[in-house]
Amino acid sequence: MEAETPAGAPARAAAATQHNKGTPRPGDGGRVEAIALGGIPEIAPGDDLAAFIGDALEATPGILPLRDDDVLVVTQKVVSKAEGAVVDLDTVVPRPEAVSFADRWDRDPRQVEIVLREARRVVRMERGVIITETEHGFVCANGGVDASNVGPGSGQIVTLLPHDPDASARTIRTAVRERFGIDVPVIVSDSFGRPWRWGITDVAIGVSGLIPIEDLRGVADADGRVMKSTIRASADEIASAAELALGKAAGRPVALVRGAQPLLGDGSIRDALMPPEFDLFA
Amino acid sequence: MEAETPAGAPARAAAATQHNKGTPRPGDGGRVEAIALGGIPEIAPGDDLAAFIGDALEATPGILPLRDDDVLVVTQKVVSKAEGAVVDLDTVVPRPEAVSFADRWDRDPRQVEIVLREARRVVRMERGVIITETEHGFVCANGGVDASNVGPGSGQIVTLLPHDPDASARTIRTAVRERFGIDVPVIVSDSFGRPWRWGITDVAIGVSGLIPIEDLRGVADADGRVMKSTIRASADEIASAAELALGKAAGRPVALVRGAQPLLGDGSIRDALMPPEFDLFA
Repeated sequence: MEAETPAGAPARAAAATQHNKGTPRPGDGGRVEAIALGGIPEIAPGDDLAAFIGDALEATPGILPLRDDDVLVVTQKVVSKAEGAVVDLDTVVPRPEAVSFADRWDRDPRQVEIVLREARRVVRMERGVIITETEHGFVCANGGVDASNVGPGSGQIVTLLPHDPDASARTIRTAVRERFGIDVPVIVSDSFGRPWRWGITDVAIGVSGLIPIEDLRGVADADGRVMKSTIRASADEIASAAELALGKAAGRPVALVRGAQPLLGDGSIRDALMPPEFDLFA
Repeated sequence: MEAETPAGAPARAAAATQHNKGTPRPGDGGRVEAIALGGIPEIAPGDDLAAFIGDALEATPGILPLRDDDVLVVTQKVVSKAEGAVVDLDTVVPRPEAVSFADRWDRDPRQVEIVLREARRVVRMERGVIITETEHGFVCANGGVDASNVGPGSGQIVTLLPHDPDASARTIRTAVRERFGIDVPVIVSDSFGRPWRWGITDVAIGVSGLIPIEDLRGVADADGRVMKSTIRASADEIASAAELALGKAAGRPVALVRGAQPLLGDGSIRDALMPPEFDLFA
């Protein structure tokens, strides 16, 4: 079918892609591998995460030399911790709205308070769930505020999303390029739920060196028919592939994905976000 | 944070998982590979798709012997074509509602008619986009009706979703087990959009031999803290990893994903679908 996004919207997504002049990678992409990196220790605020990632690239068998079809996927929690995007719940005084919601739904009112502080807009706040739009434009449960796997002080400390996840990705990309002499695109990923289906999948929340969506409109499909509306969320699929290798509970925060074919270029995660005026579920 | 799904909902998802008695796979899942199978020809109604897949497993280097950590991902379109779930647009007389919507938004009224026929419920129908709930319970654009890559007659023929995608997966799984002597779980996948983000990612629409979601609540995370609300959409992530290897326009409809760690067991895609009464975006 022709339309998967509201009228007017595809042109905008196309413009984002055009603007970024993404470059297709060579090769046919028929094999894609995700490899969890070993040896990354618990990260604390101020740690040089990129240096730890470089060490892990060296320590993990089969990774070096880096290839020009590699993408590095770094999960949000270690990025937030390294950048100090954490809050000690003891410092939080919840507003009355947070207290009443938390009381009703058996949640921690301080966590609810932080979610509301991080929100540009509350999309839904009912039945114990808070869906917000963050300052970055992400619509997700709890504004990306996360209490699991936060290391010492667990239960007491929550992580926020990085302030500028594209910049977080760029910092790691630059450090890897300087150390290994090859330009590897970087995705910062996080686990988001979706309407209508149970469960979370990993998606991109920051990128550097690639275009997060790939506009295939105008590309002929296998029948020579022009595919009118297909926009492929490449970065999100790469994040999901990485998550399969990382697992949820294994303390492995970084994966290398080898052989994927995202468009290379100067992309931003903003290219992947649908503005509320085009969204049917705002 | 604790809640990503409405109050009452997690218990239901947990019940689905418990009911299915999923079995964790051995190994740590640190490496996951997706390999596109070669040599699958254009599929026509009545074709023995499972036999073609078996041939492709034999023809693709590095696939055999099959392993006990393999999952086969088969895209919807070849399944629908083999099962004859196709409609010739020339046979379709659109209802007035379809004609007026199509006129307004520059769409084919016959395609709109088919989308409405396939719908159990229209979730949104505005700005050129139709989001429906299908008879299976999938909420997606155009009810999964698809006009791209449908082979000879392209532009004239559309595919519908398979009538029972779990059964489609089971048929392929059984044939592979009989031919190769190893039980490989099968996912039937399709490309769905999501609210709030541009682009499509591949998700599971039918499964056999695995549980599509993995309930990690009660599992300790790396800090020993119990993760209260994490439900991992493993089958959807496996479908996305497969899509990275298949690409959108390359005429490769089947991939093997090796090394992923879904729960094995007698799952159904229904386990992954959130009933409208729990959904905040129904």
